[in-house]
Amino acid sequence: MKRLVLIRHGESTWNKLNVFTGWTDVQLSETGVEEARKGGKLLKENGFDFKMAYTSYLTRAIKTLWLVLEEMDLMYIPEVKSWRLNEKHYGELQGLNKAETAARYGDEQVLLWRRSFDVPPQPLEEGDPRNPRIDKRYADVNPADLPLTESLKEVIERMLPYWNSDIKPSLEKHQEILVAAHGNSLRALVMHLKGMSEEEILAFNIPTAVPYVFEFDDQMTLRNDYFLGDPEEIKKLMEAVANQGKKKA
Amino acid sequence: MKRLVLIRHGESTWNKLNVFTGWTDVQLSETGVEEARKGGKLLKENGFDFKMAYTSYLTRAIKTLWLVLEEMDLMYIPEVKSWRLNEKHYGELQGLNKAETAARYGDEQVLLWRRSFDVPPQPLEEGDPRNPRIDKRYADVNPADLPLTESLKEVIERMLPYWNSDIKPSLEKHQEILVAAHGNSLRALVMHLKGMSEEEILAFNIPTAVPYVFEFDDQMTLRNDYFLGDPEEIKKLMEAVANQGKKKA
Repeated sequence: MKRLVLIRHGESTWNKLNVFTGWTDVQLSETGVEEARKGGKLLKENGFDFKMAYTSYLTRAIKTLWLVLEEMDLMYIPEVKSWRLNEKHYGELQGLNKAETAARYGDEQVLLWRRSFDVPPQPLEEGDPRNPRIDKRYADVNPADLPLTESLKEVIERMLPYWNSDIKPSLEKHQEILVAAHGNSLRALVMHLKGMSEEEILAFNIPTAVPYVFEFDDQMTLRNDYFLGDPEEIKKLMEAVANQGKKKA
Repeated sequence: MKRLVLIRHGESTWNKLNVFTGWTDVQLSETGVEEARKGGKLLKENGFDFKMAYTSYLTRAIKTLWLVLEEMDLMYIPEVKSWRLNEKHYGELQGLNKAETAARYGDEQVLLWRRSFDVPPQPLEEGDPRNPRIDKRYADVNPADLPLTESLKEVIERMLPYWNSDIKPSLEKHQEILVAAHGNSLRALVMHLKGMSEEEILAFNIPTAVPYVFEFDDQMTLRNDYFLGDPEEIKKLMEAVANQGKKKA
């Protein structure tokens, strides 16, 4: 049996402020640090023993990975970082408060931007200082590959090639690997692994820092998938994510 | 100009107890964490911008690297870990207090074990639970390469091939790289880079968590090397390391 574990980063300072983050490189909040440590402890208690780990170029996912590896006494395993595991790029919405945006444009428009399959938010302008094409961390990436906004469809289009070229072969070779990433890059992967429809993935919320386990047989057929931890608690965490985009009462 | 920066891990819990550590996987002490953060801040203030980082398989060096990268906002750069950057293996001495060992065998014998060029301490027995050949973290390494004890000469013999095959080409390509490692694996590298004699390297002490900068021209000729920070403070740190093996008064 081969095991792939996905973990969404813990709460960030901007999750806390309920602001669209996307590729903005914010820190984990103190709660987020605790969440990540808890995820690591849970994985250790359940006997996971990763041989390799993947993460994005964004601090909140990398820090989550480091905290998990620290708790598991697995700091020595190879880590690989790729921009293809980054969060969905939220274009001009990056930095705007979700509740305010909802009050202005309505819950429906915000849900569409956050969760529609193929409608991206307004793109950043080429000259915007937030343009990843002028960010040194992406200097090695082909500029044509770097987005100014993204729909979930576009996230899948840039994430899946990396799954196929790197993560999947690594899982086949190493048997047990960890991916620490973001709500939408993980959603893209889950949609692919579980063969979900556009509607299903739109309604599917990944809780923060709860290990999501996928078990494959030797032919790489998915046999089982489950969240690790207390089911009641996980349900609450999933509902909290689903409610983030709604305007305050 | 190309810049290579070496950083020795901050104080570990066993440094603090004055115990021979070697390949024992101990944590940084709180002081060690602070030292590493300080090193990172200093590198940032001085405009360093690493493109890639190397470290060992041991937690105290990896954690030092992570703290430095965190302070520098460089968590996204590629990190590569290799057992070839591990501390010198101290064989049967691992776990023994340095001052007690000195009281028992004399300062001279301890200095010989710690600092002689080619006399290794007594090796671990094959069946010792500390044998790296039965440690899962070294499962991918050829068992014949894994030591049961090492002299500095043997550290050089396993470290230099890695410098030549990986770190040096990476420096030529990326211009600015960081190596976070240990007293003796870094001493081996310094001896090679500066063409030191056996006597010179024996007397040379690398202070913990002080960035040690090597500047090369485009032909990879070493042009300059210096420690970053306050010279008086660095001198004190180097003396503290030199005095560790002496028995208590």
